[in-house]
Amino acid sequence: MPLLVMKFGGTSVATLDRIRRAAKRVGREVANGYDVIVIVSAMSGKTNELVGWVNETSPFYDAREYDAVVSSGENVTAGLMALTLQEMDVNARSWQGWQVPLLTNSAHASARIESIPTDNLNSRFASGMRVAVVAGFQGISPEGRITTLGRGGSDTTAVAFAAAFGAERCDIYTDVDGVYTTDPRISHKARKLDRIAFEEMLELASLGAKVLQTRSVELAMRYNVRLRVLSSFEDNGADAGTLVCPEEDIVESNVVSGIAYSRDEAKMTLISVADRPGIAAAIFGPLAEAGVNVDMIVQNISEEGRTDMTFSCPVDQVRHAEKALEASRDRGDVNFADLVADTDVCKISVVGIGMRSHAGVAAKMFECLSSEGINIKVITTSEIKISVLVHRKYLELAVQALHDAFGLDKAA
Amino acid sequence: MPLLVMKFGGTSVATLDRIRRAAKRVGREVANGYDVIVIVSAMSGKTNELVGWVNETSPFYDAREYDAVVSSGENVTAGLMALTLQEMDVNARSWQGWQVPLLTNSAHASARIESIPTDNLNSRFASGMRVAVVAGFQGISPEGRITTLGRGGSDTTAVAFAAAFGAERCDIYTDVDGVYTTDPRISHKARKLDRIAFEEMLELASLGAKVLQTRSVELAMRYNVRLRVLSSFEDNGADAGTLVCPEEDIVESNVVSGIAYSRDEAKMTLISVADRPGIAAAIFGPLAEAGVNVDMIVQNISEEGRTDMTFSCPVDQVRHAEKALEASRDRGDVNFADLVADTDVCKISVVGIGMRSHAGVAAKMFECLSSEGINIKVITTSEIKISVLVHRKYLELAVQALHDAFGLDKAA
Repeated sequence: MPLLVMKFGGTSVATLDRIRRAAKRVGREVANGYDVIVIVSAMSGKTNELVGWVNETSPFYDAREYDAVVSSGENVTAGLMALTLQEMDVNARSWQGWQVPLLTNSAHASARIESIPTDNLNSRFASGMRVAVVAGFQGISPEGRITTLGRGGSDTTAVAFAAAFGAERCDIYTDVDGVYTTDPRISHKARKLDRIAFEEMLELASLGAKVLQTRSVELAMRYNVRLRVLSSFEDNGADAGTLVCPEEDIVESNVVSGIAYSRDEAKMTLISVADRPGIAAAIFGPLAEAGVNVDMIVQNISEEGRTDMTFSCPVDQVRHAEKALEASRDRGDVNFADLVADTDVCKISVVGIGMRSHAGVAAKMFECLSSEGINIKVITTSEIKISVLVHRKYLELAVQALHDAFGLDKAA
Repeated sequence: MPLLVMKFGGTSVATLDRIRRAAKRVGREVANGYDVIVIVSAMSGKTNELVGWVNETSPFYDAREYDAVVSSGENVTAGLMALTLQEMDVNARSWQGWQVPLLTNSAHASARIESIPTDNLNSRFASGMRVAVVAGFQGISPEGRITTLGRGGSDTTAVAFAAAFGAERCDIYTDVDGVYTTDPRISHKARKLDRIAFEEMLELASLGAKVLQTRSVELAMRYNVRLRVLSSFEDNGADAGTLVCPEEDIVESNVVSGIAYSRDEAKMTLISVADRPGIAAAIFGPLAEAGVNVDMIVQNISEEGRTDMTFSCPVDQVRHAEKALEASRDRGDVNFADLVADTDVCKISVVGIGMRSHAGVAAKMFECLSSEGINIKVITTSEIKISVLVHRKYLELAVQALHDAFGLDKAA
């Protein structure tokens, strides 16, 4: 029988009533002739409660025990979902990570999936089980201890099951009805995309369109899993949500697919750094060690052996960055005249696989911002993305103007 | 190293603060040179919440899924307790039932323990672990599914571990400080017993002194596990609580150890039943099938081939009993003139292993009740117990009078 993976996030299973609604969706797919693997998160709020208890008990907790405690929320939902399906006369059974088993490495609290042997579930499917409800976010280490995959790990669980079992599709039910051309709270013209390429989704996800966990998209891309994001709170037709899929499955598309943004950025500039080989490593090594997530990096041209080095990072990490860089200077590893932090910036990105074949996207973007009187502070580009830092007060204006300029309110 | 089993019930681990207090007790025993197996219940209220969800989801639930859901509460406490001990620099690790493993049969929701292989934990103890925190109440079936042992199963888990690992003692921490000669709410002269024999404890437990689950006492008796009941909410000296132990460990004792009672009893009499072989089976078989817990049974002498048959059962089962008996009459299986239910009775029992060697206990009991003007409705006796049914209004008076008559306020 063809197989579907369906994943329900915390808000989609927050109450018994919502679990029932989710179960009805599963029942419909079973009636359509699918065997289904359902991946469930914990009821929303539960994981936070458990994490809170762990933190209060032991600030520097043993991650093995963290995992043992925190994984329990998903087990509850899995059992309740299986019971709900049974009440609907669907042959269903719950599975905890160790029962499947979902094998991971031993990196507790952020374990990576090693493999998912399929024999166990497949023999149950063969003998009449129609739905396996699997507790998301968890697995078992080679030592036989429970592991968790880190936040958002249920999306990753779903994609991994879809890959291992060769599912026809992996449907991610969440509280939004798909991926939008931009944040609808910022532009009312934002339009839901029917399809988006994996690469685009990766750029959008990491840029703040927090619909899917980045790791799950990477995994889907690697194993060519067709991923659909759709709402648990609406009636979905066959074309509901957004399909995240290989580039070649997208026949028609705009050159640009979406405008992403990140509000709380900071721009830091090291003035007059000695421009010598190894200087970048000397600067960014200690920053990485200090836990600073450096995003954009721009090095200006060198004059008389000295240069300015600019980078961006989340605004709440500025202090850490300053401390790390000053410590480097004190040790004599890096020499700079001054360190200037601009904490009033945001990042705006234009994303689209169409850029690969269409020139002039960057020019159009800069022209649009210029015509609105928005000064660009930093620019970086990749194959399918152009990002700029601008003053934070321009965030909404920039997003709206770019959305219009690239005609994103209209389908291709 | 010598080994202790320490069990903490739901109220003893109800909050992070109480878990810390429990952990301190464990730490003290580790400092005393013991390896410790700690058995924990779910935080109080948690199991009820989970059971409530299951019942609401599926009134006739699949017990396999019930077990998967309901067992999660203990897992949370086990992890938190291990973390708390680690914070105190005690080498501790949590274990879920399937990890130990605690092997049970497949009778989900009321599974029986088959065995507890000791290799796994013992090899950890050998390599430095000092405390194994085990989630109580749960095990794993031959099919690899999670099982639970039924309500109060954590006591049974504790005793089973003590038996399997040859523990020096099994300490049950609860919200009372031991076993009393009677209910202190009824007689202010009630006195805590330092020691009580297994057999006595069984009679007292099943009669309503709800300190220890009956199954756990039976198991302790079978494997000769020294069981100590004591309070988590008091500082306990070496002689704290009550030791439940083999009869031969009790050197001095009163003839009678305690006065138990059961408030909500009903007395039912079948008037003029045909006294023929098989009549008892014909009456009590259908009652058992109807889920009626018949306790005392008395058959009066037969006159002209007919007799009166009296039995007691919980007062809230009277309706069920009546229905079952009338159905039997309608089917022609049992013939009786009338069925009289007296729903205003209670049961008072005098319990003590000393009765085996001392005559006159029954006479003293009847005399005492008679001198208080209390009419006895039904009497049954066993080797170490005499029970009577009396009008419910005499419950407090009877308990207090008997407690005085047998001198239970004074130690032997």
